[in-house]
Amino acid sequence: MIIALSGGVGGAKLALGLSRVLPPEELLVVVNTGDDFEHLGLSISPDIDTVAYTLAGLANREVGWGRHDETWSFMETIEGLGGETWFRLGDRDLALHVERTRRLRRGESLSAVTEDLCRRMGILQRIVPMSDDPVRTRLLTEEGWIDFQDYFVRRRCEPVVKELRFHGAETAQPHPTFMAALADPALQGVVICPSNPFISVEPILAIPGVRDALVACKAPVIAVSPIIAGRAVKGPTAKMMTELGLDPSAGTVAHRYADLLDGYVIDNADMAEVVSIDARVTLAQTLMTTMEDRETLARTVLDAAAVLRRRK
Amino acid sequence: MIIALSGGVGGAKLALGLSRVLPPEELLVVVNTGDDFEHLGLSISPDIDTVAYTLAGLANREVGWGRHDETWSFMETIEGLGGETWFRLGDRDLALHVERTRRLRRGESLSAVTEDLCRRMGILQRIVPMSDDPVRTRLLTEEGWIDFQDYFVRRRCEPVVKELRFHGAETAQPHPTFMAALADPALQGVVICPSNPFISVEPILAIPGVRDALVACKAPVIAVSPIIAGRAVKGPTAKMMTELGLDPSAGTVAHRYADLLDGYVIDNADMAEVVSIDARVTLAQTLMTTMEDRETLARTVLDAAAVLRRRK
Repeated sequence: MIIALSGGVGGAKLALGLSRVLPPEELLVVVNTGDDFEHLGLSISPDIDTVAYTLAGLANREVGWGRHDETWSFMETIEGLGGETWFRLGDRDLALHVERTRRLRRGESLSAVTEDLCRRMGILQRIVPMSDDPVRTRLLTEEGWIDFQDYFVRRRCEPVVKELRFHGAETAQPHPTFMAALADPALQGVVICPSNPFISVEPILAIPGVRDALVACKAPVIAVSPIIAGRAVKGPTAKMMTELGLDPSAGTVAHRYADLLDGYVIDNADMAEVVSIDARVTLAQTLMTTMEDRETLARTVLDAAAVLRRRK
Repeated sequence: MIIALSGGVGGAKLALGLSRVLPPEELLVVVNTGDDFEHLGLSISPDIDTVAYTLAGLANREVGWGRHDETWSFMETIEGLGGETWFRLGDRDLALHVERTRRLRRGESLSAVTEDLCRRMGILQRIVPMSDDPVRTRLLTEEGWIDFQDYFVRRRCEPVVKELRFHGAETAQPHPTFMAALADPALQGVVICPSNPFISVEPILAIPGVRDALVACKAPVIAVSPIIAGRAVKGPTAKMMTELGLDPSAGTVAHRYADLLDGYVIDNADMAEVVSIDARVTLAQTLMTTMEDRETLARTVLDAAAVLRRRK
């Protein structure tokens, strides 16, 4: 079995690649929920939704969020009624949020709701939230502390970030399926997908017990760099690194995972960084444009894990 | 000024007629909220919405609820996710419910939210809920007490009704705009629209002070019969009358309003009932099919009020 730790778009791309080269029962995708928020009275889990839509073949690959078969009557109408429109909710996407919210209010856990809704979307792989307890990423900017979606969507990542905190992480329980899989002798590897380390991966690592379990894990832990030649494929990763006083490079990301990393996959463009990385490095094309790119990178990661398993 | 008491479809038709023959500032539509309910976490006010969509020119006249420019992506998708689909919510209609719910949760009153949303829909007339306090119609059927929408939509009015109760009515405050208008010397008449007496008009009359204020009102109170030749134009009015042991006739409706009625408009088909009605009766075509029908009936009601004002 393979565990993939994922945030939104970049992580979902590799999770999709993995889902296409592994039998469905051999992939467990553990998803960041630090981006989750309440909007218009609805419980929204953007990263879970991106991973689910991606694995279900429903994702809008052009914009990187939402569904490809979306309609916008709700948004058009609520705009005319003076409602909030900064977070775009398509008519079909809304159904997922309304149904999830109804079931959460009825007392079901986020993971139970996610499991059932994913099954109904035809997804055969397991997708679990990092925790059923709420964790909320907040950012200290020059304008003070702001909520993640205010930063990410409403402010388009413009405010300069000085610090991040994951509210609730210290008392959250990691999802038991995740922890059980980490301790499972059948585990073949843990893949840290090419997601933003600060806002997608570190919220997962911030939950008590997760980092230790990854360090102790008998299977190799392999990350894929979200940085190619000093730039992020999508999103504010490189911008945040600069603002936090870090060099925006593949090596910098590896250092943040140094204690738990066995292998690291970086882009061919970053060959010069190999010397600075304290893990077995694999060079590959990490930019995933086509479906073939996703599958090829997935195979590269699984091959690297196989080599590391023999060594570990 | 004219006050129109209205439920959903039938009432909204006459309210539309009145809105087209009166200056906008001279019409106040007071709407039943006994049908209101919470569904999928949303606060839904079906009669307010039907009146608002009707006056805004947005109503779907074929089915008698919702909007004519509706799309159904949300409903299609939530069905695939195993969500509840017995109450049909279009994508645009949903925007109204989401925005209303958000503002109610923020502490705004139903009337304040209604006023603003109606203004944004381009409605110039005033539409006020009968009360800002929750009143919920429940029905005792052969299967026990059930909520209004369970009876009306989910069960398609099939259960036999033995009794109705308006929960919350006894402690609800009538809307102050309604009560002020009833006491206003400029009031020219109160029109009880051709809505179901049991589920649309009597919830309004059940609020403490309303019935007395209508009796004491200096302006004439005129009802339009929702029954034509023993049958309801739409909905379960005649069926409920039979189940409650009443004769389904225009006269029976008049008797329920006997203490407060000055005038009564019945269909030409019910001429024989004139003798049994203790109010000044006007015969008219009360079936409103075309827009001209709505306007003509509105003028008939206003003319009857003018005659009664001179007598009262």
